[in-house]
This record gives sequence, structure tokens and C-alpha cells, in this order.
Amino acid sequence: MASEEQRLQAVAFDAYGTLFDVFSIGALAEDLFPGKGKIIAQVWRDKQIEYTRLRTLCGRYENFWQCTQDALRFVDRALQLDMSSAQRDDLLDAYRRLKPFNENVRALERLRAMGLKLAILSNGNLDMLETVVGAAAMTSHFDYLLSVDSVRKFKTAPEAYQLAPDAFGCSARQILFASSNGWDIAGATWFGFTTFWVNRSAQPAEELIPPHAEGRSLDDLVRFAANRVP
Amino acid sequence: MASEEQRLQAVAFDAYGTLFDVFSIGALAEDLFPGKGKIIAQVWRDKQIEYTRLRTLCGRYENFWQCTQDALRFVDRALQLDMSSAQRDDLLDAYRRLKPFNENVRALERLRAMGLKLAILSNGNLDMLETVVGAAAMTSHFDYLLSVDSVRKFKTAPEAYQLAPDAFGCSARQILFASSNGWDIAGATWFGFTTFWVNRSAQPAEELIPPHAEGRSLDDLVRFAANRVP
Repeated sequence: MASEEQRLQAVAFDAYGTLFDVFSIGALAEDLFPGKGKIIAQVWRDKQIEYTRLRTLCGRYENFWQCTQDALRFVDRALQLDMSSAQRDDLLDAYRRLKPFNENVRALERLRAMGLKLAILSNGNLDMLETVVGAAAMTSHFDYLLSVDSVRKFKTAPEAYQLAPDAFGCSARQILFASSNGWDIAGATWFGFTTFWVNRSAQPAEELIPPHAEGRSLDDLVRFAANRVP
Repeated sequence: MASEEQRLQAVAFDAYGTLFDVFSIGALAEDLFPGKGKIIAQVWRDKQIEYTRLRTLCGRYENFWQCTQDALRFVDRALQLDMSSAQRDDLLDAYRRLKPFNENVRALERLRAMGLKLAILSNGNLDMLETVVGAAAMTSHFDYLLSVDSVRKFKTAPEAYQLAPDAFGCSARQILFASSNGWDIAGATWFGFTTFWVNRSAQPAEELIPPHAEGRSLDDLVRFAANRVP
């Protein structure tokens, strides 16, 4: 039986990659630029994340929507796509309405039934989060949408993770932090959360710090949480 | 004619990728793991840099040699190489003695003849820098070997770049910072250096902040500097 301090009070989810499939825009990209959908999705994602880190390290914050647009401009030039503004707008609009993973709603309902509070803790700015969560009809499932925009530092800065203990009013250890991103889980584990790596695509573990648990979907996370509720 | 403040007093070089060819280990990697040399060199480099950024963002500094070793362990697992300790040691030893680019010594001699002070400002810890510079017989060309290890934050943290103005005793603007890495040049430009992007492999520019100048080798940098010395 888990001790009082170890019992979970809440779950904080990463959004992009964890609840919403950032590679789902690959299909649209493939339609627009045949043969290049996969590489467009990959470079766009990598560069977007790189810009969040560089801007945080340099104290030159711009919000996630700006980083997302900048990264797409880089993709256009790097892959010599000669993108039209209509094509750019289509891709950006798809990013605002990313496809959620299938098991999400079922898992969120089960976690809530255990008495856990639920939040998203994301690099995305609030406007992006409200749009993507709304488009997936998931708004009512969350107690909080927490955006790092309020501290102007992206994950993995501790100030970004601190948003969750502040919102839930409990210790980091009592919050289960879930992310599909190995780097995010490492940062969250260092920060002090109980961590669950939703390793959707069977990525190799990072050589940083291991998560407390790992699975392939939110269904696995539900099983993990069920043993750690009051 | 450049104004007094705009005249250069010194040049600070990034080491890895700028003076020393980080992809030169690809040939050894190809010998050890046929068909995989290029991908090993690429993933090793990407992961090494990623770990420096994550550790700095999280306040979990470990030195560059540790990040380099951790990244190689990741490469081993991610590419399922089943690396022996002898193979690992061979690759790490090659990294300690990376091949310098051909034009280096000629360019350094010309810069020194203009009256400029010269330094390396690198993520590498001092032991790594002394080894790689010594192996290339370039030690006598530099006034300072500056390692971010002394501030325990990797580039692009401002504290890392601040090492150069502190060492040279002049303003950042009076120091020409040279790097082959687009992200390093962006951080250095934000910091306030005069910047020259040694864009050796014709990479697309980042969507961050443009450098003051760009060329393909240190010879191009020498031409740029020649118009800006007292």
C-alpha cells in the first residue's frame, strides 16, 4: 500500500505527442508535397522543439505558436518546398486541430472516476491549447489547462513544471506527470513528479534519468495510477 | 572605416564543428559498423547537443565529456549496434583527437598577424580542449582556451558566452565570434558578439536571428576580419 505522501492526487499531461498526434499532419503534408510528408512532419517537430530550448536558454522567449510558425518556415527552406501561403496556412491550421489519440477520452474518464484531478501542462500557449482541446471535444475532461506561456520559459525549465503543483495545491510527487517525449519525462523526473512515459512509438530511453514507469498508451497509465490512488 | 567601438580586438572560436570536424569520426564508425558510419556520427552529435541543452535547462549540469559518453550509449541502443567496450573506446578516443579543418592554421596565423587575440570558447571541458588542440599541434595559436565548464552551463546560455569578454577585457561587440553551428551563432548574436557563421556544409539559416556575416571557411572569416581591425 502506498504511503500518504506517495498517493496520487492528480495527473498532468503533456499535450503535443502525448494527447495529440503531432505526426498526424504528415498525411496532409504528404498530400501537399508527395513523398515528403514524413520528413516534413519530423523536421517541423524537431526544429519547433529546438527553438523552444534555444529561446529559453538565451532568455529570448516567443510563444509556442511563434516557434511553430518559425519552424515551418525553416522546413520550407531546408527542404526547398517553395510553399505557397495557402499550403502554409493549411499545415498551420492542421496543427491547431491535431488528431487526439483514440484511447484518450476513455482513459481520462477512468482517471477522473478514481478521484484524480486532471490537467494539461504544455509548451503550447493557451489559445493553441483551447483550440486543440476544443476541436477534440475534450474540454470538460480537464480541471486546468496550464501553459508555460505564463512563465515565459519552455519545458524542461523547472519554472514550467512548477505550474502543476501550484495549480493542484499538492506536492510534485503526488502528481503523475505523463508525456510521450523522453526528454520531457526526464525533465519532469528531475523536477520531482511521479512520472509515466507514454512511449507510444517504442523509442529508446534517454541516458538522463529513468521515469518511474513506462507504457505504450494512456490505458497503461490508467493501470499504473489505479494502484496509487487514496 | 569602422568606428573605434566597432573595430575588432579578438576572435573567439567554437571548437567542435568549427575548428574540428565532428563528422570525421564517421569514417571510423563506418569501419566498425559498415553502412552505419554516417548515421552514427549524426545521431551521436545530435544527442550530445540535446543533452547539453536539457541539462542546462534543468540545472543538471554534467560536463561535455559525460554528455558525449552518454550520447554514444544512446546511439548504441538506438541503432542496436551491440557495441563492444573496445569499439566504444575507439570511438571516444577518436572524438578526443578529432581532425582539424585544413585551413585552420593558415587562418589563425593571418588573424594573429592583424594584431587580434585568439581564443576557443567551447562546450568542451578543459581536458577535452587541451587534448584535441594539442593533438592538432595548435596550442600555441591561442591566447585562451575557454570552457563553459567553469560556469556549469552550456551554450547558448549567456553565462557561457560571457567568458570571452571577461577573458579579453573588451566588449562583446569587439569580439568576432565564429561558429559552424547555426544555433551557436544565433545565441552569440543575441548575446552581443560580432558574429561570423562558418557555414561549412551550406546549411539553411535558422529562423532566429541572422549572423552579421557568413562564409564557408575560416579563409572567408579572415577576409571579413581584415576590414575591421584597428
